Amino acid sequence: MPKRIRLARRVVAESDRLAKELSDRFNRAGVFVANLMSSPGAGKTTLLEQTTRRLGAELRLAAIEGDLATDRDARRIRAVGIPCRQINTGGGCHLNARQILEAVAEFDLAALDVLFIENVGNLVCPAEFDLGEHRRVVVSSTPEGDDKPIKYPVAFHHADCVVLNKIDLLAATDFSLEAFRKYVKGLKPRIPILELSCRTGEGLDAWLDWVRTERRAVAAQAPGPAR
Amino acid sequence: MPKRIRLARRVVAESDRLAKELSDRFNRAGVFVANLMSSPGAGKTTLLEQTTRRLGAELRLAAIEGDLATDRDARRIRAVGIPCRQINTGGGCHLNARQILEAVAEFDLAALDVLFIENVGNLVCPAEFDLGEHRRVVVSSTPEGDDKPIKYPVAFHHADCVVLNKIDLLAATDFSLEAFRKYVKGLKPRIPILELSCRTGEGLDAWLDWVRTERRAVAAQAPGPAR
Repeated sequence: MPKRIRLARRVVAESDRLAKELSDRFNRAGVFVANLMSSPGAGKTTLLEQTTRRLGAELRLAAIEGDLATDRDARRIRAVGIPCRQINTGGGCHLNARQILEAVAEFDLAALDVLFIENVGNLVCPAEFDLGEHRRVVVSSTPEGDDKPIKYPVAFHHADCVVLNKIDLLAATDFSLEAFRKYVKGLKPRIPILELSCRTGEGLDAWLDWVRTERRAVAAQAPGPAR
Repeated sequence: MPKRIRLARRVVAESDRLAKELSDRFNRAGVFVANLMSSPGAGKTTLLEQTTRRLGAELRLAAIEGDLATDRDARRIRAVGIPCRQINTGGGCHLNARQILEAVAEFDLAALDVLFIENVGNLVCPAEFDLGEHRRVVVSSTPEGDDKPIKYPVAFHHADCVVLNKIDLLAATDFSLEAFRKYVKGLKPRIPILELSCRTGEGLDAWLDWVRTERRAVAAQAPGPAR
């Protein structure tokens, strides 16, 4: 086997092993983990702020924030009252399983119901990296245009849920809801598409219900303590 | 030297060699080359459409479009009347020098004044790859938020010009022009920031002037035929 391929295989195998370790740990602790991916500025952090405000009294939440630089997002999330750990990747274009293992060491996972992982703002690379999560959420937003699902198919193909944010800007853009839905369903016919505005609050209830439902489904299957 | 580092160094050296080959070829032909980078949906293709409509009679333009999938962008650019070559990267997160070498083989470079390279929509990875271009342009947009320069500093740090698109949406967002300018200037004190709207046309003249001026500056230094 050529050296380059041997090397690439070793890196992938190590990454898979760490992701499996994370997955086992999340399941033992009975915590539901969602990995959020999007373009820069689609609204992942704002979605987590709004989610915390609305679900924080009902579920024990925490978050991990991935960014190239700054701790702005972690500070925003802590300001709404949940534990949050910032990972700075330097120039790194995605979060990897080793970074998540280090970050979760600072949480008491068994004391959490839901852990959100906000990935680096990048609609390409994060899709290739398993972080042991139960569900993947792609956040898209109307100003980005309705063609993003077909132009960035890998991220959408690996998603379990698509959030379309900034529907309050629909009238100010050329975005076609019909085209967006068609493109997403063309990749994944049965995936939920949750159209909402973190700014106005419209549509947020369906997202909160999705989090509740998926958490219960995962908890019901987990080998850990009954919730 | 460990195998991994030897391998990485060989890849970088090859990439640098190809970028140098591109740069030499662009200079010999006397064509000005700008590499455009942005988040998905910031408006790179729309900027090129508008540029072509306004400069197409004055300068001989062409474009290379980089996308993971689809030839939508190339079709949009050809529709406004300039030669355009689409590169599909499969899942690849950036354009590389080898892809550009193959793409430029289909152009008569000496018959062009300006070649735009529209990189894959990704504010992280493309910044690491030299394509032999004369100038780098980062396109940001107001709905993405004013903090993108400090959250994605590598792309902005390597830019020669920052275009802020979608200023027609300023009133509908929380974007602070003052904060954005401060963050960009904090990374590169003297970089031009061109605030515009491809939708309304506001501010486009300053961008066209930037293209004209930079092209003349590069042509004046090029070893190729006098323009």
